[in-house]
Amino acid sequence: MKNETRSAEANVVSSEKLLSHWQEHRRLTRKVLLAFPEDKFFTYSVGGMRPMAELAMEIIGMSMPGVYGLATGQWEVPDRPEVNFSMKPPATRAEVLKLWDETTEVINKVWPQITAERFNQTDKAFGMYEGPVHWHQFYFVDNEIHHRAQAYVYLRSLGIEPPTFWDRF
Amino acid sequence: MKNETRSAEANVVSSEKLLSHWQEHRRLTRKVLLAFPEDKFFTYSVGGMRPMAELAMEIIGMSMPGVYGLATGQWEVPDRPEVNFSMKPPATRAEVLKLWDETTEVINKVWPQITAERFNQTDKAFGMYEGPVHWHQFYFVDNEIHHRAQAYVYLRSLGIEPPTFWDRF
Repeated sequence: MKNETRSAEANVVSSEKLLSHWQEHRRLTRKVLLAFPEDKFFTYSVGGMRPMAELAMEIIGMSMPGVYGLATGQWEVPDRPEVNFSMKPPATRAEVLKLWDETTEVINKVWPQITAERFNQTDKAFGMYEGPVHWHQFYFVDNEIHHRAQAYVYLRSLGIEPPTFWDRF
Repeated sequence: MKNETRSAEANVVSSEKLLSHWQEHRRLTRKVLLAFPEDKFFTYSVGGMRPMAELAMEIIGMSMPGVYGLATGQWEVPDRPEVNFSMKPPATRAEVLKLWDETTEVINKVWPQITAERFNQTDKAFGMYEGPVHWHQFYFVDNEIHHRAQAYVYLRSLGIEPPTFWDRF
């Protein structure tokens, strides 16, 4: 920070807060995964969109390699190239949840390796999308909120009350 | 920043970047408002959820007073208490868009008044929700993404292709 009074250029949000914000949303999304009846989790759709299981796999397949990418510039999980955002769902929701919880742990483990400087470096996420590292991290969270909200409509149209949006704890 | 090497505690994202991220999402949401046929904008719903016009009013009614609140701790638009998140939609989409565009300008105008220190102060947003100011700002964006994604399902179920999620420009 060169000048405390120029708030536009000052960094104002910490890495720790960004991690917390991400994990808050992941906790809410996990509740949404559990709100579906098991069969609907894999099959139910509105407007021809993907069912919850496939959306969950996209989120897992973006977040787990994504946090490595944020930290290192290598947009993959070491020794597990199959974890990517076109991953197909496993056979049961329990297996999806296992991958979900593993992702949560990987994010917590890898996150502290993202240096303060790294957040404002430019990188090509997954070799495809160029932008600042913090922007990619925001994208992961935004994308999760976006797909989870689809699932809210699926649940409502099934007559199921979804978890409240602010219940991230 | 007490210590550059402790990235967890270092602030890593600037106020300017947070504003840009918010306005990028607002641009995409504006495109979604325009993607609806005018009658469906006011009436169409899935699963008993609110139609797009009411969601747009919630976003306007949260964002316009919200940016004043972020800056000043007064969670209302000066001399316009009617702009709040239970605002009813006006009669035409053109009027909703006018309020939308006014909100965009108000955000740009008021934002620079948010000091760097303010982002980490605790406040009670709208007199109701206690948390750090940056957290409230994230909430406004998250809430907009959430409701806009409902609208994506509405559009798909109407057979209309929504704007792509990354098209925020």
